[in-house]
Amino acid sequence: MRVGELSRQTGVPVPTIKFYLREGLVPAGELTCPNQAQYGQRHVRRLRLVRALLEVGGLSVAAARDVLGPLDAPEVSLPDTLGIARRAVTPACGAPAEPDADRAGAPPADPAGRAALDAAAAWVVERGWQVRPGGPACASLAQLIRTLHELGRPDLLELLDEYATAAERLAAAELALVDRRADPDGRLEGAVLGTVLGDALLATLRRLAQEDASRRTFTAPTVL
Amino acid sequence: MRVGELSRQTGVPVPTIKFYLREGLVPAGELTCPNQAQYGQRHVRRLRLVRALLEVGGLSVAAARDVLGPLDAPEVSLPDTLGIARRAVTPACGAPAEPDADRAGAPPADPAGRAALDAAAAWVVERGWQVRPGGPACASLAQLIRTLHELGRPDLLELLDEYATAAERLAAAELALVDRRADPDGRLEGAVLGTVLGDALLATLRRLAQEDASRRTFTAPTVL
Repeated sequence: MRVGELSRQTGVPVPTIKFYLREGLVPAGELTCPNQAQYGQRHVRRLRLVRALLEVGGLSVAAARDVLGPLDAPEVSLPDTLGIARRAVTPACGAPAEPDADRAGAPPADPAGRAALDAAAAWVVERGWQVRPGGPACASLAQLIRTLHELGRPDLLELLDEYATAAERLAAAELALVDRRADPDGRLEGAVLGTVLGDALLATLRRLAQEDASRRTFTAPTVL
Repeated sequence: MRVGELSRQTGVPVPTIKFYLREGLVPAGELTCPNQAQYGQRHVRRLRLVRALLEVGGLSVAAARDVLGPLDAPEVSLPDTLGIARRAVTPACGAPAEPDADRAGAPPADPAGRAALDAAAAWVVERGWQVRPGGPACASLAQLIRTLHELGRPDLLELLDEYATAAERLAAAELALVDRRADPDGRLEGAVLGTVLGDALLATLRRLAQEDASRRTFTAPTVL
């Protein structure tokens, strides 16, 4: 099909499709003559995936490109893809909100920062998790620990193990679901969607569960 | 103390403090003469909280203002504050990534959109959650359900109940922790931090748990 038909089938405007092609989010069509390309069902599917990552997952174009890359390189293994998808969406904790507003006197390697990194590493070891100790997720955990201490609210860290248990159970369920698919493309796509949309799904369900818990506790205690 | 000392104590540069004052994220100091204001420990604490929301929680300045507002209006109740904090950080699912790239033929009230909203509402009722059926979190859940169907991956929705159980347990633990504090300020602050930093913490721990699960499954099956 030509680009106009691709647009009709997916609901994505032609200029947006051309933008995704230029940015490498969608693979090029097959050139039938110098100015005309043909697209197939693979492009329909990819366009829907791109929209899901950008609109529902909230990824940047650059992050989406990192996540989608392995789908076009079938020699990349499933664990590698899982790792790439994970890293592309790891929250960038600790990055200053405004580039020119760095905290004075708080470079990454100050004593408080090192203490938080040590605390995060020790917690991960105690939990028995096999992860890279210097990875971005560990740094992000350290930043959160440090922030709660600086705010005088280390009490909120009592929830750490409760959160970790939830994260473990979800990771196991996700992996089992991805592993069930026999086709490599389906596994890769499932890994990407599970990581990216899983965050959005969990944040959404937390809001609903919080609203429910708050309503039961504060407006109708007898319902408990 | 004057603004220079406030900057030294918190590590936040003076121009950034002035920006937060203009944006209403930090309450004004006490004017001692027309051009000079005095700040106290309350400002030190608030500045740390603002940095936590913007840098660690990833909130926009507008969202942070919505969340912080109730802290300056003590007549607002705890459940109201919890609700405000929750709404300010509810993921904006379904918003187009580029303003001029709306999906052609997919207005919010199309049949597929209505079906997804009905499916989300039915699921919430079945779950027994007492929430506003038309709220933003329900709309966000509907959008996620619709996206996974459009992508041909409704299998990923099998995880919905697993995610919901995790969300319920966390909401109960958070509420119990917030409720334990006797001082209203501490409760309000705990509710805000729990909601905003809780998302970041959970996303971070999911990455670590996924890395651990993936490593055990794919590189050392005997460890299982």
